[in-house]
Amino acid sequence: MHVGGRPVTLSGLPIREIVFTAGAPPFRVDPNGDFETEQMYVQWMKLVSPSGRYPILMIHGGGLTGVTWETKPDGNPGWQSYFLKAGYDVYVADAVERGRASWSRYPEIFKGEPFFRTKKEAWELFRIGPRDSYATEPPKRTAWPDTQFPVGAFDQFMKQGVPRWATNDVATQRAYDALVRKICPCVIIVHSQGGNFAFNAALRAPDKIRAIAAIEPSGAPDPAKTDLGPLKAVPHLFVWGDHLDAHDLWRKITPAIARYRDGLLAAGSSVTEIRLPERGMKGNSHMMMMDRNSDEIAGMVKTWLDQAAR
Amino acid sequence: MHVGGRPVTLSGLPIREIVFTAGAPPFRVDPNGDFETEQMYVQWMKLVSPSGRYPILMIHGGGLTGVTWETKPDGNPGWQSYFLKAGYDVYVADAVERGRASWSRYPEIFKGEPFFRTKKEAWELFRIGPRDSYATEPPKRTAWPDTQFPVGAFDQFMKQGVPRWATNDVATQRAYDALVRKICPCVIIVHSQGGNFAFNAALRAPDKIRAIAAIEPSGAPDPAKTDLGPLKAVPHLFVWGDHLDAHDLWRKITPAIARYRDGLLAAGSSVTEIRLPERGMKGNSHMMMMDRNSDEIAGMVKTWLDQAAR
Repeated sequence: MHVGGRPVTLSGLPIREIVFTAGAPPFRVDPNGDFETEQMYVQWMKLVSPSGRYPILMIHGGGLTGVTWETKPDGNPGWQSYFLKAGYDVYVADAVERGRASWSRYPEIFKGEPFFRTKKEAWELFRIGPRDSYATEPPKRTAWPDTQFPVGAFDQFMKQGVPRWATNDVATQRAYDALVRKICPCVIIVHSQGGNFAFNAALRAPDKIRAIAAIEPSGAPDPAKTDLGPLKAVPHLFVWGDHLDAHDLWRKITPAIARYRDGLLAAGSSVTEIRLPERGMKGNSHMMMMDRNSDEIAGMVKTWLDQAAR
Repeated sequence: MHVGGRPVTLSGLPIREIVFTAGAPPFRVDPNGDFETEQMYVQWMKLVSPSGRYPILMIHGGGLTGVTWETKPDGNPGWQSYFLKAGYDVYVADAVERGRASWSRYPEIFKGEPFFRTKKEAWELFRIGPRDSYATEPPKRTAWPDTQFPVGAFDQFMKQGVPRWATNDVATQRAYDALVRKICPCVIIVHSQGGNFAFNAALRAPDKIRAIAAIEPSGAPDPAKTDLGPLKAVPHLFVWGDHLDAHDLWRKITPAIARYRDGLLAAGSSVTEIRLPERGMKGNSHMMMMDRNSDEIAGMVKTWLDQAAR
């Protein structure tokens, strides 16, 4: 289903002629008219007899879609399947502008322009390999020796990437807020850029969100500017992979999330933090739900959810 | 899963500075590098004990995605659910450039520019109402008096729309051909613009495609230019809704499909044609899988598939 969004009307744009198929006569296209924009997409699967106390809402990260949680790029089952088999109803979102949520003409409706993540940026940012270890030819790429990411499936993974805008945060938050009103009470499993949307959704509807498992969130409300009191009864789990100190951006992100974590603790929230390397699990990437040991990590999240969600 | 596609490299583009979040420092974005392009997305659901002889591949139409087959805009179950319950494994595709398949930077990778279908165009082309019966305000819209489309869900339906290019047919066909090689033998249920891709996929792999149920296909190979002999053993079903004579484009499309149908008959293929109004079913739109009587039509398709697929 699609959730949220609003109607919008374009006018005054020039009429174009487009040739659809080689040799066919040009087709007159008038871009003016009414459209829907800023909706999101959510796919749900409900079990006949769920055993999980609440459904799980799975929220993906930046430049990606709900495919994050489906069958992994190496062909093995992903977390959507894991948590369905574990007895949870599962909702998987595609945020505004991503995947089946669709996107709108820019700059007239969406502001600014989209950008596209390169393989090199993903390779480094998602910590498959160290800085400057990416190469166009797969055999020349040098991953972290202990990486858990299925390196042979990296190009297949990159087929999952979608463009993103830097200007849709307000619309995206609005859609997530509408989704929470529609489908929760629920628990959330959220990845990376999605973290900030999930945390803010919980601040606006703390009674609706019974727990948040945040997988390497890349942003969070600043407790110096935001009263985290409403989150007192929303337990949080943070899960971190390996090699975080080896990338500039992660060295900047983790202190911001630590401030949010400390703000939650000061507000009296229940906080659990799992640093996988401290538990003897080395080499996990940012895409740990696709790593070879993803089921082990899902198991930790499930154990936490089962005891944390009121 | 994502299927098909190819790597591509961009170079020589200027570096940009993008502000991700209001107040945040600008982020340097280098658009040059390696990407994947022209892949498609396919979601599959397999039953523990399918009773259908072959899995069904569902192919959507232009400006849309696999969401076409999911829960209908009015909240009722769609054809994906219908055929799963009927015992078929079901694959649902998002074509190249659509939905979770993702899209690529243009004009550098995708050629030309995308266009976006207006509500007015959809209202008329999908035959919800006659020409010039669309209005921005829902109460002022005048649908066909006998329409089967759930008119109150029209704006919700329009949230499913996605942009399309006029320049990706070759890449899209290549991806469908790769998909057929990967997942078939199968039967295909195809809608509108998807028809031409399905018919051409069958021409290239007639042993893999055991039947095609074409719901108002909008294009087909021209038998004057194409040997349809390979399709001799591929049964075809064509299903047509109502009010086809009331729209210019449909008056042009239906004779082209009739030529394909006649070419199939000349080649010795088994062809079944269902014109719903001739069976007493009035007011069906182009989006008949979302119409109020969609289950009845699905039942006709299932009956045909069960006897047609070798």
